[in-house]
Amino acid sequence: MARIYNFCAGPAVLPLEALQEAQADLVDYKGSGMSVMEMSHRGKEYDAIHNEAIANCKELLGLGDDYALLFLQGGASMQFAMIPMNFLGKSQSADYINAGSWGAKAIKEAGLIGNVNVAADCQKDIPTRMPELSECNWTDGAVYAHITTNETISGAQMKEIPKVEAPLIADMSSDILSCPRDYTQFAMFYAGAQKNLGPSGLALVAIKKEFAARGNVGLPSMLRYQSHMEENSLLNTPPCFGIYMLCLTTRLLKQKGLEKVYAENREKAALVYNTLDASQFYRGTAKRDYRSDMNITFRLPSVELETLFIKQASEAGMKQLKGHRSFGGIRASIYNAFPIAGVQCLVDFMRDFEQRNG
Amino acid sequence: MARIYNFCAGPAVLPLEALQEAQADLVDYKGSGMSVMEMSHRGKEYDAIHNEAIANCKELLGLGDDYALLFLQGGASMQFAMIPMNFLGKSQSADYINAGSWGAKAIKEAGLIGNVNVAADCQKDIPTRMPELSECNWTDGAVYAHITTNETISGAQMKEIPKVEAPLIADMSSDILSCPRDYTQFAMFYAGAQKNLGPSGLALVAIKKEFAARGNVGLPSMLRYQSHMEENSLLNTPPCFGIYMLCLTTRLLKQKGLEKVYAENREKAALVYNTLDASQFYRGTAKRDYRSDMNITFRLPSVELETLFIKQASEAGMKQLKGHRSFGGIRASIYNAFPIAGVQCLVDFMRDFEQRNG
Repeated sequence: MARIYNFCAGPAVLPLEALQEAQADLVDYKGSGMSVMEMSHRGKEYDAIHNEAIANCKELLGLGDDYALLFLQGGASMQFAMIPMNFLGKSQSADYINAGSWGAKAIKEAGLIGNVNVAADCQKDIPTRMPELSECNWTDGAVYAHITTNETISGAQMKEIPKVEAPLIADMSSDILSCPRDYTQFAMFYAGAQKNLGPSGLALVAIKKEFAARGNVGLPSMLRYQSHMEENSLLNTPPCFGIYMLCLTTRLLKQKGLEKVYAENREKAALVYNTLDASQFYRGTAKRDYRSDMNITFRLPSVELETLFIKQASEAGMKQLKGHRSFGGIRASIYNAFPIAGVQCLVDFMRDFEQRNG
Repeated sequence: MARIYNFCAGPAVLPLEALQEAQADLVDYKGSGMSVMEMSHRGKEYDAIHNEAIANCKELLGLGDDYALLFLQGGASMQFAMIPMNFLGKSQSADYINAGSWGAKAIKEAGLIGNVNVAADCQKDIPTRMPELSECNWTDGAVYAHITTNETISGAQMKEIPKVEAPLIADMSSDILSCPRDYTQFAMFYAGAQKNLGPSGLALVAIKKEFAARGNVGLPSMLRYQSHMEENSLLNTPPCFGIYMLCLTTRLLKQKGLEKVYAENREKAALVYNTLDASQFYRGTAKRDYRSDMNITFRLPSVELETLFIKQASEAGMKQLKGHRSFGGIRASIYNAFPIAGVQCLVDFMRDFEQRNG
């Protein structure tokens, strides 16, 4: 067998080393006589995994004791609901940036709970982009401001984080731990694990403890950050196997260091963007200043050529290059675990395809 | 290595065959060149797993097209919130049976949303039990009635399902698919997967479509049954790997047939209960008519002997026999996947321990 080059936007490629370790231990974890999937979430074997996963994340993110690191279920989409349910009271309002499909979804869900002010809206712009900081109209007294640091579908990434008065909340589902960042500028940030960190079914939430404490106390326990925080994400049985996989991937990230992870991600992205820029055939979808290092979106001269490109790339072992169904075109998602050899393979294929069809 | 006998109440032992198949395919699923954890949840490989898992459950449960089978996140605890949020309006009330810790938790969460009538309360009774049907005070016009078919902590199981006017909802977390049942008498039932079906991080919900349609339309999408139903549990990225494991375990259940699964579960439980009944040393915790086939709880003459029992059993390869921290004593959880050889090993140990310490 050969591992394919998997450009899927999520669930996405995981580090081969992490998968191989999980495979070796799947039936008998480290001589315990059971799988990680069979372990009590309150036993000593799982406890070590759980707390290492938290410690790895906090160290990589540079977070101190004023932050809680939570493992929740329901993906980023559940966060779209939990955030306003916790923090957006009836007579209050929250600011949201709408720069793509994920921001728009967050806004829609928050609007079911309370007043939303869209501080900037460039969701429909082509080329796709993030708002300029100067065009954002932040509201006085907003209870929080919500941004999406990377729009997975359109391939636009925020390069500068806005400075706001209100507590800043960020959906980082598709670029968390892909780059160093001052993560302490956020009151809260979150990410579905299935792009840079692990399998689906697990969301990582980092939240300032004093911010969590402001949450609506009348909510059901499972929907309150405070109750998860008090129980160290063991309020009920957590998604243990997903947390174990995240533990393995963050261990590898720590070994490499976030600066090196970022340098490799920049190098991979540059290979593709340079290929786009050197060509009259391919056309990048995102505005140059906002090009995502994680999800690279581009078009070919016709939909027919795009279909042929996807088909021939797939035959050559490069899978899942089709753009999101709502957006079309080509999307190459190259998260942390995506190997540079696969990116090289893609750009070689792109040049060859252009020669044959340009 | 030897696999231990894992009596954990959940996450619990999984079928060795399922684990071995998952292990073989972990890095390269059936020649696809990727792990199930890396697959697009909208791709053809995962699609086949997802739909087989649904079909297996529906077939085993005997459910027709009038039911939707959903895979949700957040475990049974999230259901404690979602049920009243969907179905319990401000001026309405719902009936709940309180027969143990899980029923009590469901009641507490529902009470945050609306009016709860406790139709019967035997939570604190010793020996532990379920209410007699005759002692249940069902409310006229209740929007639903909620029961817990098996109380995992106390080891009491409902042997006869009450007939009620209101739509009946059951938490079956610890006995789903352990026995044949007329599953169509329920408007809805649900179970965390981590006892009889798969790993944690996944809840199975079966719901009548016309009942789901009654849910509160103003809720965030992730909290509405209707929105999950409309998207076949693909409203957002589902817990794909957990669903895959559930697919493997339900495939094995289908091969065996639910009648045979039940016969084996009865046989396993009888081995332990007969040992309790033949002894003056051990004392079963549950009232005879309500003894659980899944979680067998008992006491020894002293806490010191219980501690010694747990320690020596653990040294002999029988793990996680300690009762829940809120309850004490011994608990042997013997779900579908628990092998009869392990039960035999336990009862041999029990007799030997009694001889040495009785």
